[in-house]
Amino acid sequence: MSGLPRSIERLIEAFSRLPSVGTKTAQRFTFFLLRLKDGERAEVGNAILELTQHLQFCRDCFHFAEGDLCVICSDPKRDEHMICVVEDSLDLLSIEKSGAFRGRYHLLGGVISPLQGIGPDELKLRELEARIKNAAGKITEVLIATNPTMEGEATATYIWRRLEPLGINISRIARGLTVGGDLEFTDEVTLARAIESRVAF
Amino acid sequence: MSGLPRSIERLIEAFSRLPSVGTKTAQRFTFFLLRLKDGERAEVGNAILELTQHLQFCRDCFHFAEGDLCVICSDPKRDEHMICVVEDSLDLLSIEKSGAFRGRYHLLGGVISPLQGIGPDELKLRELEARIKNAAGKITEVLIATNPTMEGEATATYIWRRLEPLGINISRIARGLTVGGDLEFTDEVTLARAIESRVAF
Repeated sequence: MSGLPRSIERLIEAFSRLPSVGTKTAQRFTFFLLRLKDGERAEVGNAILELTQHLQFCRDCFHFAEGDLCVICSDPKRDEHMICVVEDSLDLLSIEKSGAFRGRYHLLGGVISPLQGIGPDELKLRELEARIKNAAGKITEVLIATNPTMEGEATATYIWRRLEPLGINISRIARGLTVGGDLEFTDEVTLARAIESRVAF
Repeated sequence: MSGLPRSIERLIEAFSRLPSVGTKTAQRFTFFLLRLKDGERAEVGNAILELTQHLQFCRDCFHFAEGDLCVICSDPKRDEHMICVVEDSLDLLSIEKSGAFRGRYHLLGGVISPLQGIGPDELKLRELEARIKNAAGKITEVLIATNPTMEGEATATYIWRRLEPLGINISRIARGLTVGGDLEFTDEVTLARAIESRVAF
């Protein structure tokens, strides 16, 4: 790009690296920040610089935490008998937002993906087994909520096989029609799964 | 939001203030930055903090500059006989990208908008007149490139009337069909203007 001072170009380049942000959007962000008061702009800059300053991974579930335990694992009101296994923090947030789960989580840190060289040992699976064993019977159900992708399904099946000997309930988040969706526009795989997984009225 | 350390929530909130960025996108940006190396993340944060450190407005055209003059006004290869009047820096960048203009610019800093309380005195119009007069005949054409909106058109007409006594050529950027566009899907105002402004083969 030309016609701009280097400090502006530098920020446009930095913003362009964000996911799904092209040059035009990066320009809009930069000029928006230019119009802010110095203090407001500094707030954004400092929020980025201080992002990981007090950050670590939760000792139990591997979610982001500011102390040893994350806000969920340290909340005594959460049900300690249920663990929901998710791929990462964004998935955890989506489930939290649904308000339908009151137990605790376990973050795998990804899914098994031979193409990307990620095997079971790269995920927090050994830690999950140890967590269940150390809880000495307190954990009674594991809900596997990996994404309904090919890799997510394969990972779910792998986890199920591996946890089976522990003698706890293992469930999988249901796949079916989206609420407010339309039969006509639902793909055949989802439709087939929705029929197989039909529930009693 | 819940379930997240304060430093992460703080950055999500900061990103949410950017134009057309909702909470979901702000989350994606934040988790993207979390995955970066410390140095790469600091580069983004520092680019924001240092954005206006050496920044001022160009003495001549009011574009952003790191010295007295912006990179365009200080470029001896640019045509000093032509001035293109634009609303702001983003419009300047779009014209620069087209590669069709090799003169210099003048940034108004907005358009006349009675509803928002912006009159001619809030724009850099007195400075434009002075600039043309001080150039003592060197500036021979002013191309008005305000946006083809109601306010942009009104501002263009106002500038034209005000500069007329100076006896220079005043032109307006053409309005017509978009290249690659379709007659069928062009609105009637644009179509009428494209017919009125027809050019000889």
